[in-house]
Amino acid sequence: MPSLEVTPTTGIAPEVEQARFLRACRNLPVDRTPIWIMRQAGRYLPEYRALREHYDLLQICEHPELAAEVSLQPLRRFDLDAAILFSDIMIPLRPIGVDLQIVENVGPVIARPIRDAAAVAALRPLEPEADVPYVLQTIRLMRQELGSKTPLIGFAGGPFTLASYLVEGKPSRDFAQTKGLMYTQPETWHALMARLAQVVTRFLQAQVAAGVQAVQLFDSWVGALSPRDYREYVQPYSAAIFQAISTVPTIHFGTDTATLLQEMYQAGGDVIGLDWRIDLDRARQQLGPSAAVQGNLDPTLLLAPGEVWVRQAREILALNGDRPGHIFNLGHGIRPDTPPDAVARLVDTVHGWEGT
Amino acid sequence: MPSLEVTPTTGIAPEVEQARFLRACRNLPVDRTPIWIMRQAGRYLPEYRALREHYDLLQICEHPELAAEVSLQPLRRFDLDAAILFSDIMIPLRPIGVDLQIVENVGPVIARPIRDAAAVAALRPLEPEADVPYVLQTIRLMRQELGSKTPLIGFAGGPFTLASYLVEGKPSRDFAQTKGLMYTQPETWHALMARLAQVVTRFLQAQVAAGVQAVQLFDSWVGALSPRDYREYVQPYSAAIFQAISTVPTIHFGTDTATLLQEMYQAGGDVIGLDWRIDLDRARQQLGPSAAVQGNLDPTLLLAPGEVWVRQAREILALNGDRPGHIFNLGHGIRPDTPPDAVARLVDTVHGWEGT
Repeated sequence: MPSLEVTPTTGIAPEVEQARFLRACRNLPVDRTPIWIMRQAGRYLPEYRALREHYDLLQICEHPELAAEVSLQPLRRFDLDAAILFSDIMIPLRPIGVDLQIVENVGPVIARPIRDAAAVAALRPLEPEADVPYVLQTIRLMRQELGSKTPLIGFAGGPFTLASYLVEGKPSRDFAQTKGLMYTQPETWHALMARLAQVVTRFLQAQVAAGVQAVQLFDSWVGALSPRDYREYVQPYSAAIFQAISTVPTIHFGTDTATLLQEMYQAGGDVIGLDWRIDLDRARQQLGPSAAVQGNLDPTLLLAPGEVWVRQAREILALNGDRPGHIFNLGHGIRPDTPPDAVARLVDTVHGWEGT
Repeated sequence: MPSLEVTPTTGIAPEVEQARFLRACRNLPVDRTPIWIMRQAGRYLPEYRALREHYDLLQICEHPELAAEVSLQPLRRFDLDAAILFSDIMIPLRPIGVDLQIVENVGPVIARPIRDAAAVAALRPLEPEADVPYVLQTIRLMRQELGSKTPLIGFAGGPFTLASYLVEGKPSRDFAQTKGLMYTQPETWHALMARLAQVVTRFLQAQVAAGVQAVQLFDSWVGALSPRDYREYVQPYSAAIFQAISTVPTIHFGTDTATLLQEMYQAGGDVIGLDWRIDLDRARQQLGPSAAVQGNLDPTLLLAPGEVWVRQAREILALNGDRPGHIFNLGHGIRPDTPPDAVARLVDTVHGWEGT
């Protein structure tokens, strides 16, 4: 097995460790509530769309100079408290044997969906340095650009969410094929989840070694499950991933997860991501004082005039009150039709908040 | 305004009032947990599919003999505790001026989506006896068939869910157009909701007058909203509907509503419908002892072998324990690919449950 190529930027510089975002991840007091935005590098920015006229999504992900450039675009415009690697949750799946396309306005499409034990057995382990060197190189480039000022977040898809794309073969509303495999071939399901947990663990460990200072697990669709199914079919695998990441703060995110928050926190994550469906104070009450939280403005609000959502953003800040451990974010990724000025105003609103 | 044509079957016969389903709606003790299934009349039944070879969905809804026949099909096969009118939540919208098609495998499609005040103003009030006489006639036919043994449930779409179809023009995942109207044209939104609440109220009142013995409000997509948006943009209109229905038990249903249950119960409903995302005991704890609940097995489970889901159905029954006020149901409509034998086994499981 190849050793990780460790660069001088690896590890957390003392200065950046005091950054608001990382202090909030660790549930420590901060001067201002930190904010970053899921999909902050992306289609709502004209400079990103300009680049996309020449390159498709996977081409950008696979070229470190392009991926780093795209990741840095929002930081040039806005006073965001963290950068996030530009990549896609499906990136580590192609090298392990998945015939995958990212189809514009559709999402990930798999030529041969995984529906049986043989298909699971055919997936090979991920060797990040050999399989996704461009991701690690992007991280190294970004660390050089960001210096010790702005923390860099790495990420991976959560095991249920990755499995759902692999089993459905395309984005789904009801996850019937995924649940069908889970219920009717539980051994195949558990084998698939164990493999994906290993892929994700290695991928995140390599990102940490390359220099990210926090990681987020995007188990975006896990809220499709009942709490009992989450506990039986997903929780052990998410727990295995978080247990393997010990040197940087971790964020555990999903949508529709209001009834899974405690289970997700038990699985792991210093910070629990919240969509907009739950009042922030209620989530904190459920999670207890040791958990930090991230969220949770409805992304659709940013399409409306500022007077509508500035009030709501302040309500969210007020619901947190003076508790440490709140990172402001949207409840899901920013929409491509969002005016960039809305992001500037949201960052100002959050940083300017002085309490109720 | 025409008076309601009251038939001899109007009102609740004393015998049927003692039916398990209606007792459970009223939070009274029952000998066995009652069960009915959302979309119990529908595509999973071969006899329904046979009829659909000759008639489309709207044709069936508009012909009382066909609609009554379809409603009764599941009762001939299974020992269900309630019948439900066969209809569609979009039915009362065509006569008020909405150019609507139900497109197979897509859902409701509106030729001219409602996006401004003029479009709202163009909607006219519903006169149920003149506009949807076939629905009321179906109810009368069914009451004759069912006699005093099996209660008959009427229903309507909830105001948010109806508005979402009208504004989006087609089924949506993120309800961006709907929320966009809500946030950017609040007066238009409130006018639309007030009109829809009036349509739904009149429609449900007419169903009650024609003989249904309970009604369910399907606000299926309201879980897309944050609790604060629900309170501001939806709750007053749902409350107005429930306040106008006083003579029969009411059921208030949505999906993704784990964080809205208390708000929905405040708006109204003797029974709160639960999808599978929340453990039933947790929902009851939130709602308090006066609310009955309905649910909440994941419909996808019925595609799996019985040994997988019989255990889960019993867990749900055990979570309720010996509390009155539990109506067993799926967490959403039954899937068209469900084997009918699964329904027979589920009914047996629920009726046969003797406690833990």
